[in-house]
Amino acid sequence: MRIAIIGGGAAGMSAASRIKRLRPEWDVKVFERASYVSHAPCGVPFYVSGFVRELSQLCAYNIDFFREDRGIDVHPRSEVREVGDGYLEVIEDGRKMVYEWDKLLFSTGARATPLNVSCEDLEGVLCVHYIENGEKVKQMAAKSDRVVVVGSGYIGIEMSEALSSIGKKVTLIEKERNPLPDFDEEIGVILKKRLEEKVEAKFDENVVSVEGKERVRKVVTDKAEYDCDLVIVAVGEQPNVELAKELGVKLGKSGAIETNSRMETNVANAYAAGDCAETINIVTGEKDWIPLAAPANKMGYVAGVNMAGREMEFPGAVRSQLTSFYELEIGKTGLSEKEAKAKGFKPISATITTKSTARYLPNGDITVKLVADESGKVLGVQAVGAGVGKRIYAAASLLYKKSRVEDFFFVDLPYYPPESRVWDPLIVAARNLFRKLGIP
Amino acid sequence: MRIAIIGGGAAGMSAASRIKRLRPEWDVKVFERASYVSHAPCGVPFYVSGFVRELSQLCAYNIDFFREDRGIDVHPRSEVREVGDGYLEVIEDGRKMVYEWDKLLFSTGARATPLNVSCEDLEGVLCVHYIENGEKVKQMAAKSDRVVVVGSGYIGIEMSEALSSIGKKVTLIEKERNPLPDFDEEIGVILKKRLEEKVEAKFDENVVSVEGKERVRKVVTDKAEYDCDLVIVAVGEQPNVELAKELGVKLGKSGAIETNSRMETNVANAYAAGDCAETINIVTGEKDWIPLAAPANKMGYVAGVNMAGREMEFPGAVRSQLTSFYELEIGKTGLSEKEAKAKGFKPISATITTKSTARYLPNGDITVKLVADESGKVLGVQAVGAGVGKRIYAAASLLYKKSRVEDFFFVDLPYYPPESRVWDPLIVAARNLFRKLGIP
Repeated sequence: MRIAIIGGGAAGMSAASRIKRLRPEWDVKVFERASYVSHAPCGVPFYVSGFVRELSQLCAYNIDFFREDRGIDVHPRSEVREVGDGYLEVIEDGRKMVYEWDKLLFSTGARATPLNVSCEDLEGVLCVHYIENGEKVKQMAAKSDRVVVVGSGYIGIEMSEALSSIGKKVTLIEKERNPLPDFDEEIGVILKKRLEEKVEAKFDENVVSVEGKERVRKVVTDKAEYDCDLVIVAVGEQPNVELAKELGVKLGKSGAIETNSRMETNVANAYAAGDCAETINIVTGEKDWIPLAAPANKMGYVAGVNMAGREMEFPGAVRSQLTSFYELEIGKTGLSEKEAKAKGFKPISATITTKSTARYLPNGDITVKLVADESGKVLGVQAVGAGVGKRIYAAASLLYKKSRVEDFFFVDLPYYPPESRVWDPLIVAARNLFRKLGIP
Repeated sequence: MRIAIIGGGAAGMSAASRIKRLRPEWDVKVFERASYVSHAPCGVPFYVSGFVRELSQLCAYNIDFFREDRGIDVHPRSEVREVGDGYLEVIEDGRKMVYEWDKLLFSTGARATPLNVSCEDLEGVLCVHYIENGEKVKQMAAKSDRVVVVGSGYIGIEMSEALSSIGKKVTLIEKERNPLPDFDEEIGVILKKRLEEKVEAKFDENVVSVEGKERVRKVVTDKAEYDCDLVIVAVGEQPNVELAKELGVKLGKSGAIETNSRMETNVANAYAAGDCAETINIVTGEKDWIPLAAPANKMGYVAGVNMAGREMEFPGAVRSQLTSFYELEIGKTGLSEKEAKAKGFKPISATITTKSTARYLPNGDITVKLVADESGKVLGVQAVGAGVGKRIYAAASLLYKKSRVEDFFFVDLPYYPPESRVWDPLIVAARNLFRKLGIP
């Protein structure tokens, strides 16, 4: 059997590894545009800040490992130009090659959404979506004094910290009223306050153009102008689906590739996994596009199992996220209240602020927002402050198991004074919702 | 209605607060032997180490708060001597008082198990089970050079750290082969190594006597003798059930008070909650005695709701625990492999060691052991190292929801390089068990 995998990121390499593990005799080829595979662009901010010294460290394994230890035929610096029924056309080292496939995986990932303003192609306007840009950003930052970061999703937040921590003057521009626009306002305002202490943070502002000669010199918004030597664009991403469309693969409403729970597309023997593919949102039960590294890896794993002729279903994801800005941790799993409303739910919610650990030990505050539907089924949890990680771990686990507010109250979390509270913040938030649900 | 609550710890005060919230007009009396209520003996090690400056800080609220803000008739320094059908005899300020009750709660807690060796009553032989002993331990430690800690459960471990951190020479004596004897050996040996770097740690040794004149001078084991000025006894605890027995309340196999899910005992209008009461172990489905602060509080809450004439069921607990020894965190939820075998399961298990966060960031290792039954239902998780808290939070949540190994693999935990891994240690352990379960 000949397997072709387009894209050597998390999903592609997980699938390839699984297939070779279950079918060592099969021919598994991975075509990757970059020089790296199994790359982790999530690590770029830590490379820019100097916390990670070598860009290559951001790759889980190098190409030789996949070739020699796992027997995968990795083709780096190869660009798939055409996908047809049973074949691929690939440009490798300037030469056009044709390969045949019996089963195909689209793990083409996502790309950064452009600003769609003039002069965006000036030197010094970069996204951090690709690991190779990590090097460019780092080199350019070294020569820059002022940086504009456009967009305050988690990449924008992490890049703002990375760049301000190495002494750059950072201006963060967000078109919405608060940072992390997927989060509700109660959480966003806490991050906003901290952002404003560390960077020049501008909200409700739209970038209208980027100006400069060869290299960027200025970002112009609908309210002001900001001199700069470097612009980081982090306004979102979109799935890479052009090749899949060429083969007649159906896209979902999100624009990503529609898949079933075995990661199959509508085209026989063609699968999709990772940031280019849709999956199920476990909270809503609906198809959703959740381009995050952890589900991408598992989608790849499941695609690999099924491509190898075994059976495995991917249950979906709950869109769990964790980030931080300096000492402030921020996390979310499931839906925010505004996302729930947009989905047609009639949510109820409780927001509480308390110490993260035993009251009598020195520690920070945590703010938790718990969102449920009117029947008491939990839709999502957001948190900001200290000790956020463990609460999002618990909340993601409970959401994955389709839990109710009562479960968030009765879940038996461990109590250890320096780490947690006897009435955990999640439990306090649940108890708070008891009142709205008529539970004594 | 006249409510009598015997014991003003976590369970008793939670119940009292709930009853007054739902039935503000009812007469709710709490009888507590100590001068404090809502006391948190879990905090004593942090008082001894000086991390917490005032012993009173270890009480969630003071007596005036419960009296004035919550309308609870708190009787500190009162000892219930006799419990009869509808009445109590109490010694208060040296005087015998009689009170009548319509509903009664036993929240009498647990007491430290004695060593049962000669001269155990010498000055300087103390347990930390009672908050009042915190003061004594701290004062005596100040005048001591050498301390023997007997027992290496979490209290023994925490006291060993507290005392060694303030410069005392600590000898820890444990009769089992490894510290934290409820944990499996793979986890125990990691803690053992760290213990041996910080204290004189002795395993497989039994204390046979304590010697001294007035004040303790020596602990004698079956292998050696240890000079000391202070002995901390932390060899376990047992439920306080004498008063309940007097009323004809039935005890369970564990020796604690048998209760149903409404926290009712076999005697009409008599309830039990907290460390003196049994509950359900959600993992085994059987009655169990789980004397821990978090379930105690919730049992009290549920008892209070039912005593107030409303309906609420306590689903049980999974015995989640978290502690640490210096930088090493240790946690457990559910059963260890040896506990599972003792319960008649045929467990399978996987133990893995990996970095706690993204490989490319500086961080520590974590060792995770996942135990399941032969069908793939998870029975328990243990972990030691860095980043243990969040894994026990997730594992406790999944165990509470009766999860399988597949759930531990597919649970959608957040990935953030400085905090977690894209393949979380819990997920790696689950994938490891896939092989033993024939899952591809």
